[in-house]
Amino acid sequence: MKFTSDINVELVQHTGSDATIAAAARVSTGLDMEEYTAEADRGLINYLMKKHHGSPFEHNSMTFRVSAPIFVLREWHRHRVGWSYNEVSGRYKKLEPKFYTYPADRPLVQSGTGAHPKLTAGTPLLTTKVNAVLAADYSRAWSAYEDLLFRGVANEVARSVLPVATFTEMYATCNARSLMSFLTLRIDHPDNFFDTKPQWEIENAAKQMEQYLKELFPETWHAFVANKRVAP
Amino acid sequence: MKFTSDINVELVQHTGSDATIAAAARVSTGLDMEEYTAEADRGLINYLMKKHHGSPFEHNSMTFRVSAPIFVLREWHRHRVGWSYNEVSGRYKKLEPKFYTYPADRPLVQSGTGAHPKLTAGTPLLTTKVNAVLAADYSRAWSAYEDLLFRGVANEVARSVLPVATFTEMYATCNARSLMSFLTLRIDHPDNFFDTKPQWEIENAAKQMEQYLKELFPETWHAFVANKRVAP
Amino acid sequence: MKFTSDINVELVQHTGSDATIAAAARVSTGLDMEEYTAEADRGLINYLMKKHHGSPFEHNSMTFRVSAPIFVLREWHRHRVGWSYNEVSGRYKKLEPKFYTYPADRPLVQSGTGAHPKLTAGTPLLTTKVNAVLAADYSRAWSAYEDLLFRGVANEVARSVLPVATFTEMYATCNARSLMSFLTLRIDHPDNFFDTKPQWEIENAAKQMEQYLKELFPETWHAFVANKRVAP
Amino acid sequence: MKFTSDINVELVQHTGSDATIAAAARVSTGLDMEEYTAEADRGLINYLMKKHHGSPFEHNSMTFRVSAPIFVLREWHRHRVGWSYNEVSGRYKKLEPKFYTYPADRPLVQSGTGAHPKLTAGTPLLTTKVNAVLAADYSRAWSAYEDLLFRGVANEVARSVLPVATFTEMYATCNARSLMSFLTLRIDHPDNFFDTKPQWEIENAAKQMEQYLKELFPETWHAFVANKRVAP
Repeated sequence: MKFTSDINVELVQHTGSDATIAAAARVSTGLDMEEYTAEADRGLINYLMKKHHGSPFEHNSMTFRVSAPIFVLREWHRHRVGWSYNEVSGRYKKLEPKFYTYPADRPLVQSGTGAHPKLTAGTPLLTTKVNAVLAADYSRAWSAYEDLLFRGVANEVARSVLPVATFTEMYATCNARSLMSFLTLRIDHPDNFFDTKPQWEIENAAKQMEQYLKELFPETWHAFVANKRVAP
Repeated sequence: MKFTSDINVELVQHTGSDATIAAAARVSTGLDMEEYTAEADRGLINYLMKKHHGSPFEHNSMTFRVSAPIFVLREWHRHRVGWSYNEVSGRYKKLEPKFYTYPADRPLVQSGTGAHPKLTAGTPLLTTKVNAVLAADYSRAWSAYEDLLFRGVANEVARSVLPVATFTEMYATCNARSLMSFLTLRIDHPDNFFDTKPQWEIENAAKQMEQYLKELFPETWHAFVANKRVAP
Repeated sequence: MKFTSDINVELVQHTGSDATIAAAARVSTGLDMEEYTAEADRGLINYLMKKHHGSPFEHNSMTFRVSAPIFVLREWHRHRVGWSYNEVSGRYKKLEPKFYTYPADRPLVQSGTGAHPKLTAGTPLLTTKVNAVLAADYSRAWSAYEDLLFRGVANEVARSVLPVATFTEMYATCNARSLMSFLTLRIDHPDNFFDTKPQWEIENAAKQMEQYLKELFPETWHAFVANKRVAP
Repeated sequence: MKFTSDINVELVQHTGSDATIAAAARVSTGLDMEEYTAEADRGLINYLMKKHHGSPFEHNSMTFRVSAPIFVLREWHRHRVGWSYNEVSGRYKKLEPKFYTYPADRPLVQSGTGAHPKLTAGTPLLTTKVNAVLAADYSRAWSAYEDLLFRGVANEVARSVLPVATFTEMYATCNARSLMSFLTLRIDHPDNFFDTKPQWEIENAAKQMEQYLKELFPETWHAFVANKRVAP
């Protein structure tokens, strides 16, 4: 049994760069792409972002391997456009006994009601207590899973008992535009145009994704943040 | 606590018909749609299906209210194109204590291995035993959920313990083409072109969806089945 | 031969309303939709717009019949998500001799260069002169088209000579969300968040589309305009 | 002035391979990808194709630069899913005087009527005659275009006279799955499952695209053709 707070995103492969984005935009204007410099690219990328001209940001590709609890992937898979997914199937294999527990800096206590209740940190004792309740429950669920498998029950039936905090893995492929749409909704920051209130765990993953965007497409990332994280 | 095998799909609203599909196709050929009969529509719809001409099947809309366990919606949400979803959020409200158990005619025993292991019926005794194991586990999980909520832990944290067999609800909107793509993958029939092996529960939902297609778009449904359920 | 500035959009069918949008959003929060009033719907729709919560705006459908020159549909078809199209085919039928000329209030003169050159009105004389040049060219192109058809040349070959100002027709189906994405890019207004500079003719069509949104989904339209026409 | 039959597709960049497709599929089954051979990949890819399991074919990317007449790109842009486009804009720049004429082996004569009339080769004399009519018309249209530009009329207005046979260029990005969907509809072959009757010119482009698929994803291409060119 493994209990962990470690949600992980790794880059598997990618193609394209800020220069590709600028080159795609210049197909429209028909200007010769050879004569352009990194500085000209920066200006053009900022211009595209402000004009909400999104298509030049699509001629590239990033494939990630993501390890996260089911409840995180449930939110992720609602991103339908410009995203491709292949996830571990609990029908074809026995899953791993790996479950999500909460780290110390994760606010756990809910105050207020409504669509976006405010969350505040509890005491360290509360985090310990919550994780203990979770671990006990996960262990019981895992025992029931193994018991059912032992009786010859199919994988796809036995998994019924597994909690949404069970870890799963997926390949996810997107492009710079669809990644930015994800970041618009899944990262909260006081300077953002929208006030989206993502769940802490998917924001954790989104922050890792944002680092890849920043490394692979630095000018695009700067323009995106300067545009209050409104995706083009 | 409610344990049930009842996966339910209800039509909320729709627009369009076989006649709309034929009218959209006739925009291409520029023929006057007034002079055409139901028989001419039938011929045209069969022709579109055989030619793999899909766009005329998109000018219509069906909205469904679906009640099903999380593991069914997990598969459903992988259909990204021509589908819109709004699902109950376990962040904003306390979920209902309603869980999936297996009906008597549902094969439970797995034999063989690999990507598509063969499932066979167990004994009635096995179904009873499996459901008893599940019910005990669901009850414990629900107690842990309520215990965490009682301590002031946020909805979105407490739900970690809930199993993937917990019922959820969604609004799902599609069109005749995206619905057929769903049926191609989610209904198994010896006469189908593809051999797709859907899980029993999503096939149950898909069969209900197919009835709506048959009622609302009867010629389209006939042509689809005659085309070995290959979606256009 | 017909020369006209009349770009036309007609609603063929639709389903859904502001109430449907609010109902879809309430599936997420799990609140009973019966008790809600139009005023509550308005507040909720504004809230969804500000949070960039787009999926509730998708559970509805509008089908339009559009008559416009080819160069307008060329821009329109770049809207890929949430849009379905069936257009008159110049392969299957002889097209109509109907061509686009410019109305008096359409700026025709270009000053400046770059990606978004400024257009200013010419004199009435210029409009008359431009339309005369166009009409003469359209007539010659049509004669060449008919000449080729007369020789037994296929429709799809003969159409090579037809200008991009030739009128065409299509069925287009979208939902309130994809329609708003179209309006974000295709309507220019000083109060808009983005400065998108659409071509005059597609903006003409977009303004007609916006009227339908305003009539069918009045609260959604108000929230959209109040949100500086940034689509959710 | 340039008259040409040369439709051209060039690969700009790509990522992914048959091995990536197999690796993505193995995420589902959870099997260790290290131990697998090219032969195992081949078997798996064939299996995916037969089961209509499409998502593993999406974790890759190909960007092409396409030079073709407007009427070809008009058909191409109807492919909405898994395709990204950036095309030369006739609003931002003066277009090039380059137009499409028909090669000797292109059937030009139409016999029969209906949605898919039969085309047969004419005489060499007919091809010469047709191209002469086209060239004369293209030249007149180009003169009108230049005349309007000379008078200070905006690019976007002057282009009204340009025929749909005018050459344009675009960046197009797709993945192996969306490319196969394109090939299903745009390549005609007696062994295909569907009988789709694409126009000669887009089939010309599609055959070039198919060569890239064959080189970059040879096992995928073989499985696709063996599956009667039905895209997964």
